[in-house]
Amino acid sequence: MLEKIDHIGIAVRDLEAAIARYTALCGRGPDHLEEVAAQKVKAAMFQIGASRLELLMATAPDSPIAKFIDKRGEGIHHVCFKVENLEEELARMSAAGMEIISGASGEGAGGSRVAFLHPKSLIGVMVELVEQT
Amino acid sequence: MLEKIDHIGIAVRDLEAAIARYTALCGRGPDHLEEVAAQKVKAAMFQIGASRLELLMATAPDSPIAKFIDKRGEGIHHVCFKVENLEEELARMSAAGMEIISGASGEGAGGSRVAFLHPKSLIGVMVELVEQT
Repeated sequence: MLEKIDHIGIAVRDLEAAIARYTALCGRGPDHLEEVAAQKVKAAMFQIGASRLELLMATAPDSPIAKFIDKRGEGIHHVCFKVENLEEELARMSAAGMEIISGASGEGAGGSRVAFLHPKSLIGVMVELVEQT
Repeated sequence: MLEKIDHIGIAVRDLEAAIARYTALCGRGPDHLEEVAAQKVKAAMFQIGASRLELLMATAPDSPIAKFIDKRGEGIHHVCFKVENLEEELARMSAAGMEIISGASGEGAGGSRVAFLHPKSLIGVMVELVEQT
């Protein structure tokens, strides 16, 4: 079961400029800043209800975020759903024909366990699943 | 204040095919089907926690969803945030330099009051605000 929208990841070129725009949207600044070395991104998080917006800026040209912006421009990169048991959900989705990009071994922010589903499985939307460990 | 992510709107060409894919993602079918004549769309809603995914298919070539798909292809069309007071939020955001596409007169699903912010104000993301009436 998908428990909630954990976060929406937004690919940006200039993190400071993006923070200024989303501060204007939210009426307050980001709750948290983080660098995720494994994904080669710097992130700024805005908590909204039980979910977050994550502004993501590449820290290297071979970051997934840099490649995404080269191809598609800035904007929403992925939607992440919180799940109770990542293996169970991946097994269920795989049986239903979903294409899984990366297995359950991936590490996300805060040491959580994550996996990504291919956008072609979901009509152009890249979906991340996260299990808090 | 943005209270929560109300929903994520996803532009699709074929609603039945999209429902099948998102049923595989969610492990169950849509909670609600609706036709919104004012937006010229048919919608299928999947509740996830306090938020929804809304699959949106155009019912006419001049629907905003049809135009979006012509330009950008299928995928996420907008993110909608629930607010307590739409006028207050629009006044605050406008003062902060946000470009508002449509004023507070718009009507969304279920008779709610909605407004849209221009994607260029938010680094490529179209944002809707909704006040439940």
